[in-house]
Amino acid sequence: MAVELIFVGTELLLGNILNTNAKYLSERCALSGLSVYYQSVVGDNEERLAETIRTGLNRSDILILSGGLGPTEDDLTKETAAKVLGLPMVEDPHTKELLKQYFAKLKQKNVTESNWKQALVPEGAVVLDNDNGTAPGLILEKDGKTIVLLPGPPAELIPLFEKKVEPYLCSKQPETIRSTMVKICGVGESKVEDMIKDMIAGQDNPTIAPYAKTGEVHLRVTARAQSEDEAKKLMKPVVKELKSRFGNHIYTTKEQDTLEQVVVDMLKKYELTLTTAESCTGGLLAARLINIPGVSEVFKSGFITYSNKAKRKLLGVNKNTLKKYGAVSEETAHEMAKGCVFETDSLAALAITGIAGPDGGTDDKPVGLVYISCYLNDQVVVKECRFKGDRNKIREQAVVRAMDLLRRCIIDHFETKK
Amino acid sequence: MAVELIFVGTELLLGNILNTNAKYLSERCALSGLSVYYQSVVGDNEERLAETIRTGLNRSDILILSGGLGPTEDDLTKETAAKVLGLPMVEDPHTKELLKQYFAKLKQKNVTESNWKQALVPEGAVVLDNDNGTAPGLILEKDGKTIVLLPGPPAELIPLFEKKVEPYLCSKQPETIRSTMVKICGVGESKVEDMIKDMIAGQDNPTIAPYAKTGEVHLRVTARAQSEDEAKKLMKPVVKELKSRFGNHIYTTKEQDTLEQVVVDMLKKYELTLTTAESCTGGLLAARLINIPGVSEVFKSGFITYSNKAKRKLLGVNKNTLKKYGAVSEETAHEMAKGCVFETDSLAALAITGIAGPDGGTDDKPVGLVYISCYLNDQVVVKECRFKGDRNKIREQAVVRAMDLLRRCIIDHFETKK
Repeated sequence: MAVELIFVGTELLLGNILNTNAKYLSERCALSGLSVYYQSVVGDNEERLAETIRTGLNRSDILILSGGLGPTEDDLTKETAAKVLGLPMVEDPHTKELLKQYFAKLKQKNVTESNWKQALVPEGAVVLDNDNGTAPGLILEKDGKTIVLLPGPPAELIPLFEKKVEPYLCSKQPETIRSTMVKICGVGESKVEDMIKDMIAGQDNPTIAPYAKTGEVHLRVTARAQSEDEAKKLMKPVVKELKSRFGNHIYTTKEQDTLEQVVVDMLKKYELTLTTAESCTGGLLAARLINIPGVSEVFKSGFITYSNKAKRKLLGVNKNTLKKYGAVSEETAHEMAKGCVFETDSLAALAITGIAGPDGGTDDKPVGLVYISCYLNDQVVVKECRFKGDRNKIREQAVVRAMDLLRRCIIDHFETKK
Repeated sequence: MAVELIFVGTELLLGNILNTNAKYLSERCALSGLSVYYQSVVGDNEERLAETIRTGLNRSDILILSGGLGPTEDDLTKETAAKVLGLPMVEDPHTKELLKQYFAKLKQKNVTESNWKQALVPEGAVVLDNDNGTAPGLILEKDGKTIVLLPGPPAELIPLFEKKVEPYLCSKQPETIRSTMVKICGVGESKVEDMIKDMIAGQDNPTIAPYAKTGEVHLRVTARAQSEDEAKKLMKPVVKELKSRFGNHIYTTKEQDTLEQVVVDMLKKYELTLTTAESCTGGLLAARLINIPGVSEVFKSGFITYSNKAKRKLLGVNKNTLKKYGAVSEETAHEMAKGCVFETDSLAALAITGIAGPDGGTDDKPVGLVYISCYLNDQVVVKECRFKGDRNKIREQAVVRAMDLLRRCIIDHFETKK
């Protein structure tokens, strides 16, 4: 079925905000096996919006509109869609009741006419309760065509789409589509593609699609079947084959898990505490780890040691080491990790020192050279990496590789039979 | 003049990438006084692309297309636009020469037919040399309508647009449009709007438009005139009035300057060195500062002290202070900043301790309570902040407020007559 996405909002046409809803909805539609041939952005203007809806109805089966469902005069998506379909607006008692409760809770006294406008819906609409805002989602059907209306803020749009719209769209599909994500770290994109060339060559169902992320490659395995169970059954041998080919390079097969989540979970599992020492990444590694709720159990402290003096004073890196080998060296990285543990009594440590550029590179030590070290159980492992890209790209890759190094050290130490 | 933006690429329809070009081009058009009423995204499909171009030509004066200019068979934007306008494709000798040089430099031997396809242009096209790729930009004109074709990668699109397309579009405008950005920190959005209500009320030329960013408000002052000088002359008294109303709350009037850039520049100017100590922001403040090239002159080290023990051990925060007042308190923030300086001999310090949530809040100390302290010249200033929003929003606001606090302390100390 052909889906068309229409985004309503002058702020998008003025370039005030990035259209993240476009990426999100396109990706989710593709995952559900729905084809998106067009996306349009139009302002809060009745005539232009109506024209865009009419064009969409002529060439697509399902229109998904987002934005313009608020209480102000500018918000006219609902009314315009109803007009195009020839549906009158009627009050939805259930939505009115939810609005009443909402305003009572806020102790808002001056509830205006325009607030109550949000309880009006096109006749016959399926009303989707919005747990995160006052504008409900709506599904309108007429003459074999469907219009889905969603509020613009992602915090409202995403839960509404996943909980209410996706099941509805799937129920209209002749087949069930399920997918799983195999996330790989430590193998380059072209190497990954090479390793699965034979699997991709003759694929039909399931399919494997690679997505490159900074320092990672994700493989999406997608199956079509009559039921969810059958789709899962189809995916199982493919995922198993990927696991046998990539082994420990796979850090998760769970869609929602990030590398930092996996690493924090492992630290918790083995009751480890971590300290970080960062030079060229200057806090990015720590900042990424602390995004995980509950990290305080395992992450207590970190050092940012940008200068040589800081490396010496805060981490006890030897003056001679810095002199003989330089700040960006295997030896300095080694001592930085050890210093973390010595200074804080943590059980594990990660240290990063490198040249992020644009300046500071030499023939011998070019921009992109980064040493990453991991201390665990009285052992220090140091990896030499040569990253490509700009200042930020180099830093991001270093952060990913550092988390991956810790993951591998924990596996080696706790999960591998000696 | 009405501009329509058309983005060509299946990867956008699949949601593989965010359409950052849409935000960029929309913003630039708005700045040049051009109205964008529609954005469309369409795949690499001749029929659908041709239909989209035809629709655009019917309702807009200028179409800007990006993507689909590469050498592969999928790339058909140029050919399709030419077909719709009824223009034959001809070889452009200059582009062919540039391609030859490019492949010679790469020592690429197998230059194929499809590579040379990039030298073909619609007859009469204005060819815009692309310094960052092989596909030139193109401007086509026919029957009073204009089609601009740009390559999709932002690293190619942005320089081409700013160097070649923008001057062209401006030359078609009856007036010159110039703008300047007044960036404010430390005053809330509604307060800012309140303070300039009278200026906005009757505005015509120049105009003032507020943009809210996390922890900041930017005011764009835009003037239309016959010449650049005249536009600047019109803006001058408005910017002066804003400066007199907001004083030190304005951290820059330079479009390209960020708060971190301004703070790093001030540290350099007064030959100060900075150390940071972060609890709830866990490295975000340091990571933001190190984005500025040359920061190593002034930023040498930082601490991430997530746990109480880390605050005690690494920063020397008193055990009794933590016990009596808690980790999130004015007293702890005070001692953290002092500890930074004591441990590292830096001349200035910033410390942040707070509750970013979602857990850990109490009635007394709710989620969003953050203490930020700044040490400078033997004095410690501590600010109590109550931020709203989720974990990330609270952290981002804390980082902005911390940089702003340092900026204000430096102004008080070095730039204010006592």
